[in-house]
Amino acid sequence: MAKTKIGILGASGYTGSELVRLLLRHPNVDLVLLTADRRAGQEMAAVFPQFSPFQLPTLVSIESIDWTKAGVELIFCALPHATTQKVIKDLLGKAPQVKVVDLSADFRLDDTVAYAKWYGHEHHAPELQRQAVYGLVEVYREEIRKAQLVANPGCYTSCAQLPLTPLIRAKAIELDGIVVDAKSGMTGAGRAAKEEMLFSEVSEGFNAYGVGHHRHMAELDQEFSKAAGQEVIVTFTPHLVPMNRGILSTIYVRTARGLSPEDLHAILLKQYMNEPFVHVLPFGQTPHTRHVRGSNMTFIGVAKDRVPGRAIVVSALDNLVKGASGQAVQNMNLMMGYPETLGLEQIALFP
Amino acid sequence: MAKTKIGILGASGYTGSELVRLLLRHPNVDLVLLTADRRAGQEMAAVFPQFSPFQLPTLVSIESIDWTKAGVELIFCALPHATTQKVIKDLLGKAPQVKVVDLSADFRLDDTVAYAKWYGHEHHAPELQRQAVYGLVEVYREEIRKAQLVANPGCYTSCAQLPLTPLIRAKAIELDGIVVDAKSGMTGAGRAAKEEMLFSEVSEGFNAYGVGHHRHMAELDQEFSKAAGQEVIVTFTPHLVPMNRGILSTIYVRTARGLSPEDLHAILLKQYMNEPFVHVLPFGQTPHTRHVRGSNMTFIGVAKDRVPGRAIVVSALDNLVKGASGQAVQNMNLMMGYPETLGLEQIALFP
Amino acid sequence: MAKTKIGILGASGYTGSELVRLLLRHPNVDLVLLTADRRAGQEMAAVFPQFSPFQLPTLVSIESIDWTKAGVELIFCALPHATTQKVIKDLLGKAPQVKVVDLSADFRLDDTVAYAKWYGHEHHAPELQRQAVYGLVEVYREEIRKAQLVANPGCYTSCAQLPLTPLIRAKAIELDGIVVDAKSGMTGAGRAAKEEMLFSEVSEGFNAYGVGHHRHMAELDQEFSKAAGQEVIVTFTPHLVPMNRGILSTIYVRTARGLSPEDLHAILLKQYMNEPFVHVLPFGQTPHTRHVRGSNMTFIGVAKDRVPGRAIVVSALDNLVKGASGQAVQNMNLMMGYPETLGLEQIALFP
Amino acid sequence: MAKTKIGILGASGYTGSELVRLLLRHPNVDLVLLTADRRAGQEMAAVFPQFSPFQLPTLVSIESIDWTKAGVELIFCALPHATTQKVIKDLLGKAPQVKVVDLSADFRLDDTVAYAKWYGHEHHAPELQRQAVYGLVEVYREEIRKAQLVANPGCYTSCAQLPLTPLIRAKAIELDGIVVDAKSGMTGAGRAAKEEMLFSEVSEGFNAYGVGHHRHMAELDQEFSKAAGQEVIVTFTPHLVPMNRGILSTIYVRTARGLSPEDLHAILLKQYMNEPFVHVLPFGQTPHTRHVRGSNMTFIGVAKDRVPGRAIVVSALDNLVKGASGQAVQNMNLMMGYPETLGLEQIALFP
Repeated sequence: MAKTKIGILGASGYTGSELVRLLLRHPNVDLVLLTADRRAGQEMAAVFPQFSPFQLPTLVSIESIDWTKAGVELIFCALPHATTQKVIKDLLGKAPQVKVVDLSADFRLDDTVAYAKWYGHEHHAPELQRQAVYGLVEVYREEIRKAQLVANPGCYTSCAQLPLTPLIRAKAIELDGIVVDAKSGMTGAGRAAKEEMLFSEVSEGFNAYGVGHHRHMAELDQEFSKAAGQEVIVTFTPHLVPMNRGILSTIYVRTARGLSPEDLHAILLKQYMNEPFVHVLPFGQTPHTRHVRGSNMTFIGVAKDRVPGRAIVVSALDNLVKGASGQAVQNMNLMMGYPETLGLEQIALFP
Repeated sequence: MAKTKIGILGASGYTGSELVRLLLRHPNVDLVLLTADRRAGQEMAAVFPQFSPFQLPTLVSIESIDWTKAGVELIFCALPHATTQKVIKDLLGKAPQVKVVDLSADFRLDDTVAYAKWYGHEHHAPELQRQAVYGLVEVYREEIRKAQLVANPGCYTSCAQLPLTPLIRAKAIELDGIVVDAKSGMTGAGRAAKEEMLFSEVSEGFNAYGVGHHRHMAELDQEFSKAAGQEVIVTFTPHLVPMNRGILSTIYVRTARGLSPEDLHAILLKQYMNEPFVHVLPFGQTPHTRHVRGSNMTFIGVAKDRVPGRAIVVSALDNLVKGASGQAVQNMNLMMGYPETLGLEQIALFP
Repeated sequence: MAKTKIGILGASGYTGSELVRLLLRHPNVDLVLLTADRRAGQEMAAVFPQFSPFQLPTLVSIESIDWTKAGVELIFCALPHATTQKVIKDLLGKAPQVKVVDLSADFRLDDTVAYAKWYGHEHHAPELQRQAVYGLVEVYREEIRKAQLVANPGCYTSCAQLPLTPLIRAKAIELDGIVVDAKSGMTGAGRAAKEEMLFSEVSEGFNAYGVGHHRHMAELDQEFSKAAGQEVIVTFTPHLVPMNRGILSTIYVRTARGLSPEDLHAILLKQYMNEPFVHVLPFGQTPHTRHVRGSNMTFIGVAKDRVPGRAIVVSALDNLVKGASGQAVQNMNLMMGYPETLGLEQIALFP
Repeated sequence: MAKTKIGILGASGYTGSELVRLLLRHPNVDLVLLTADRRAGQEMAAVFPQFSPFQLPTLVSIESIDWTKAGVELIFCALPHATTQKVIKDLLGKAPQVKVVDLSADFRLDDTVAYAKWYGHEHHAPELQRQAVYGLVEVYREEIRKAQLVANPGCYTSCAQLPLTPLIRAKAIELDGIVVDAKSGMTGAGRAAKEEMLFSEVSEGFNAYGVGHHRHMAELDQEFSKAAGQEVIVTFTPHLVPMNRGILSTIYVRTARGLSPEDLHAILLKQYMNEPFVHVLPFGQTPHTRHVRGSNMTFIGVAKDRVPGRAIVVSALDNLVKGASGQAVQNMNLMMGYPETLGLEQIALFP
């Protein structure tokens, strides 16, 4: 079978390199195009030495590409937020048959008014937004199979949606007072050189950030409200952990309809019984990020709070895999009609 | 002025070594007795090489001490939980004038019935418990000045009480639905050799533990209920951060009486205006553990949640200093009539 | 094709879990037996939660196995040093057709007199020692293909041999005055619960250990002397790095025969041109451990020292993969006639 | 006694903040001037929140200072290399009585020709260079007492000189073939935002850099040649450790004149018997960086190599304290006639 010809826009960042790691071992794809504007002309091995033993296309700038001749069939777009809409619009204007998985936030919000409010500028491609499918496979699998443009979800939001969406749909929890206390490794902040991300600033410490107001909230609002059929606004606080990979969300909920924490566990267990990339731990056990590191797995645990009527749900995933590039490959597999787990079989690297 | 003769029981653990670090530079004390049962006969430098340049008493076992002749005036007891009650009872039976600051949980609960329930055994010294004063200086300063036996608070509970107690006393927050999501560095787990505390098990990962049921809750229940004048039960989840020192508590509350998050901030600002070891950040700023590391400071921040009526309070301290040994020295200073800040002036070590 | 039935002795340690990680994705094997004496009766998921989503044999004790009926064709032995000789002797006595890859130091030294000197006790299976083949594939590939018992090399020694053996064989460096300054991540020290390996003891610090005398030297002496055809004794100092995985060796040599550092580089480049798991960087570049983490690769760099006649050679590998379990699988592939790279295609996980 | 009025140029970097940490607790100084060009107008608490509880001068730019009216008596200059010569020249032109401790490399090389060769530009203040005293107190104590301009040594070079200079002076080691394998924490690289210093690039890995050619070598050459009375060129390789603070140097030497490793140990023990900030461990023990973290101590160990005639010397210090700002305060104490240890009594923060 002919392999799908793949391009990655933004290959010099962490989600870009993670795509390369996964796709180099995917049996059905050929990496034919890698872009990195500031590193154009360099080899991937100069930017990420772990790829030294491999043959990869030389990095080019996006501007230098003639999309009518690029010969790519599917593009992963791993560019910074707010730069993607124009690039994709231009690309699809010139090569309308190309499929796109976008890892930025640029196509995640259905409502371009909400987008403008949260991101501070008008949406640059509202007509594309209408076709975009939100790419959380466990929720939108069938829509993704038919999509041309998939908006890969955010890492924080994936980690919160996988445990909460089934509970909200089942009306198993009260919709007000949900608290998502989220903790992320540093790769979630990207590879841009900023003082506050230096090793010496981060190591041996812990902090919250964006307290009370964080852009990921828009995505949570949209998806939870859809799941509930009514507006849902959760409290969400992100924190930074001195580690590279992983997100852990500790989620505080009140059970509804007289249900017990055990009932919530049963709902999640049933929901994910046949999902290859979501694993529900036995009741009372909660996950560690280290047990999913490098893999496409999400682990979920449910425990009883000693406060009556309350449960604590904890979820963990690798922000670069299930929270970004692994999820993107899972989306690609569906879009191309491949087995969903292809190229995503890596087992967590622990320790 | 004659210096106070000090003994430390349990000098080979982390709170013990932290006491030595602080007391070696305290102008009014002499370290005359150090115990460590398993390391008896060894020098402190063999157990903690950072003390190699200093003259310190050789480690002895507790059994080998004749308390009637030991010549100590104040004892810091840094023994494991559940071993302390008998030791202190024996000590005070033989040397009834000695003052004691106990860093374990053994004398923190006024109610010996609650103690038996949470710790699984009868209290071994209920008559001493009646005299014990709970040693959170910012709450019980005057009682501590007159106390002979002070129960130093737990690190998690100090970090939660310092921001919450003034808000509860002021009836500024609703008493139900309080969530304390706490994250601690690894020294909080002590120095005992356990597989789950090995570097390779801990580094590059994050996890919750004791979800829904943790012994520190008993202490929180007691102190918050006292502050409220009615029973208060909070939701509390501890987590482990791959760092040595520091606790950060992210606390979710609903304001009461129509108060705003800004009002909560004003209450804390006023409460701590003249406290040497609690600093309230400007409204909207939240603390990092790294900015209190090695110091006796607690930093507190208050932010507005986007969910109406809710506020997020974040506090940070060094679990070995303000959360344990620094607090203990602060207690000693009060008990001995010394200036409260003596020996506690160290500024945080960052980076 | 029928899959090879595999057993792992000592599956609850880090080299054991790493074997499971690799072999679960190896197309030609079935894991049919896992032992862990202290955890016998438990599931692998209780010991290493990352395997929760997988079906694996329940852990058993070695004593409980009837080797005549166990049905295993190849055993990986990941037991502690000095316990292995008796186990393998007993196993091969009862099941003489089984192939064995031993990851301990028990069969690495040809000379049982040297063994007794370095390890402090007589060798328990000298007759097996005579058949054992030293399992550094890049040096002994043909012997390994025909071996029944392969002694997998040590992690420190692999990292030193891969760059030095070709240079010694080529008489390209002086044999006296070689200095190997080696730095290892903490998983090299195993999973036993020891105080000095606790997170709080290790993090935020660096130290040498075993300075001047370390057991790995016996293995280096043997292999370097064989390569040279005369006795070679190198200076070797191991250090501990606060990271989980990786060894980096900085090696100081004097060039021989008027050769330049560039000549040394050329020798290594030629030697490893077609090796799948050794990559020589361009002259002057030196490797990072993070670029081989989780992979079976060794990266080697050569640089010129400013002191005339001296070169600096730096090598890096993942101590749990190429330094232990990956190497072991590579040996198994040769012993079973499989393609050498089967199951070892994982790309380094960076960041 | 009137306190010395102190200025710090470059207060927003790590050596600057470390000076502030030390000087805030120094009894004989007043901090009256803090500069930070890019952060001019901001408070120190905005740049380093650990100083929030303290009153400090607002940050200003150097340009904005009128040196004739600044009222400072001693300046610590913590500016980047190559920017300092002009600043100091201008300052001393306008305020010729001010004393200066310069923490950059700009005044460390006596030979301005060597300076030009290593740093790639002419020295901008050769007349000042002639007056500058090299500020390693344990070697140049008397010269420093009388100096107006002290060039504080580099962190790597201090860590190598303290163990090696006495051995070279005593002709106790061979002068050729010395190897210094040095490992540093990340604060040694400063606070500039560079991709290779991001947490995700550094954590969980280890690497050498500048192999064969590093600017610190010029300083080592100068000082070792002075000590020997003849030219000495050592092999020096720096490495980066994923930790914040600390340098450990593993130094490989051959003993001279038939001396034993024990003899080297005796020489160092005698040399440093009365030094407050250098501690020689018992023979055979080697130091950990964590036992000097945050303190002004250097720990030194000597061990026997199994290769006859060779010894291994290991030294450890905190690069920001004894390797930079603590050393600078020690120099100030001498220059101002204060007790040498004033303000430098902090004990290492471990764990």
